[in-house]
Amino acid sequence: MVGVITNQFVEIICVGNELLIGKTLNTNAQWLTKRVTTLGLNVKRITVVGDNLLDISTAIKEAIQRKPCFVLTTGGLGPTFDDMTLEGLAKALDVQTKIDDKALKMIADKYYSYAQETKMDKIELTSYRIKMAKIPEGSKPLPNAVGTAPAVMIKHENITVFALPGVPFEMKSIFDETLVSILKKAGHGIAFFEASVTSANIMESEMAPVVDDVMKNNPNVYIKSHPKGAETNPFIEFHLSTTAKDTTTAKKCVNKALAQLTELIKAKGGTITDTKRED
Amino acid sequence: MVGVITNQFVEIICVGNELLIGKTLNTNAQWLTKRVTTLGLNVKRITVVGDNLLDISTAIKEAIQRKPCFVLTTGGLGPTFDDMTLEGLAKALDVQTKIDDKALKMIADKYYSYAQETKMDKIELTSYRIKMAKIPEGSKPLPNAVGTAPAVMIKHENITVFALPGVPFEMKSIFDETLVSILKKAGHGIAFFEASVTSANIMESEMAPVVDDVMKNNPNVYIKSHPKGAETNPFIEFHLSTTAKDTTTAKKCVNKALAQLTELIKAKGGTITDTKRED
Repeated sequence: MVGVITNQFVEIICVGNELLIGKTLNTNAQWLTKRVTTLGLNVKRITVVGDNLLDISTAIKEAIQRKPCFVLTTGGLGPTFDDMTLEGLAKALDVQTKIDDKALKMIADKYYSYAQETKMDKIELTSYRIKMAKIPEGSKPLPNAVGTAPAVMIKHENITVFALPGVPFEMKSIFDETLVSILKKAGHGIAFFEASVTSANIMESEMAPVVDDVMKNNPNVYIKSHPKGAETNPFIEFHLSTTAKDTTTAKKCVNKALAQLTELIKAKGGTITDTKRED
Repeated sequence: MVGVITNQFVEIICVGNELLIGKTLNTNAQWLTKRVTTLGLNVKRITVVGDNLLDISTAIKEAIQRKPCFVLTTGGLGPTFDDMTLEGLAKALDVQTKIDDKALKMIADKYYSYAQETKMDKIELTSYRIKMAKIPEGSKPLPNAVGTAPAVMIKHENITVFALPGVPFEMKSIFDETLVSILKKAGHGIAFFEASVTSANIMESEMAPVVDDVMKNNPNVYIKSHPKGAETNPFIEFHLSTTAKDTTTAKKCVNKALAQLTELIKAKGGTITDTKRED
């Protein structure tokens, strides 16, 4: 990606049959990529696999071989038979899973408080509930403030793998609670900045050489055109983005390219219908 | 996946930096997985990579090595510098790209009609427009009724790769126009059927052994629980699905499991808040 000033990258692996049969729209991936990008890191690949031990472990193993700084997985941490991400993670790292005391305490505390809240006498720690404490050897459970299954963090060489729940509000809560500070540190304060301008009455193919010119003039800014209408009634959103050592520099770069592009759109006879930019 | 009675599978590769920075929600992947599943085939993996030649060609090469029957790519067919899916596809298959006469004619015809529609004298076939006709040797351009860039189809051993545009309405149009009949034939009339039931007042971890029992009784039906609330105020959607040699069989299997599960939810003290099933 143009403008990327680090070769630290992140891979995301989303686990769930529901994502492979079209039942569920992968909003987790979009949320995570946006957050990771904003924290100064670069997402290089998203992989979606089903609830299948071999597919999960293969996807994790392959990601690790590409040497990202972080691998984030979502889904497959719950109590049901098909929640097998942690087993897949262990298999990928060639370690065993075992019941972790800290994880078990987190889960036991949850069910204790659930019993109190719901005025039940006691909620038994069945094998299905204990399963959520079975995590890869060498990994660390991360508290889940809004759900039951702990997330998991494990280091392997220079790579940190985080296994997060698939339930969006649990995933987001753990990300904000625990991951943000770790990822931010790895991002070394690198700032990401984006803006966009939408033009009417000018074809994408007409604008392609213009985009090339603006990018040549602004080598740190990446411009991607997103056609929204037909070529004969074209609306094109030009999305400009960059990463820089600080926000001021990133903004300056993007704004300069945005101003040039806007002028060139007008010079070609296009109309600006919208400009989006944070101040 | 339980109930899958074929080992024919499909891989989807989505190309676009916008999917890796959280700008765009990957609705193309959901739409495609739903359609492919309904046509009797099984999507095994979705890979998202950026507009980077090496990443694209690597992802396609890896997918091909897993021997799916089809690989569907989205994105990267347009006129701009960062549209490089066809080059990546050629690299993955170790062939060259070349300007294809049929593809060029499709594109030239489009610009001829655009000129007429917009009452322009002529729209020049610039190198940016001709680029869209540069397709891998041995591939076939597929007409794009609602856009400019042709899609591409290429066979490699027993695998067919389709490169589709990233603009959703173009991707969908080409899928419906050309791919449906080919995929349906490969699906051998296999029917996919799904239903769901949502329960309240019963924890996911409480239901986990029940799901196991119902699946043991209905070995062709896959049941996945999707928790929607907290464990203390739980709403769980149980999604049941199967594939079978015909729709009648598939429906019968799912409906039998649905009835059993519904009874067991009630027996555990849960309330049914919703049931979704096509008739």
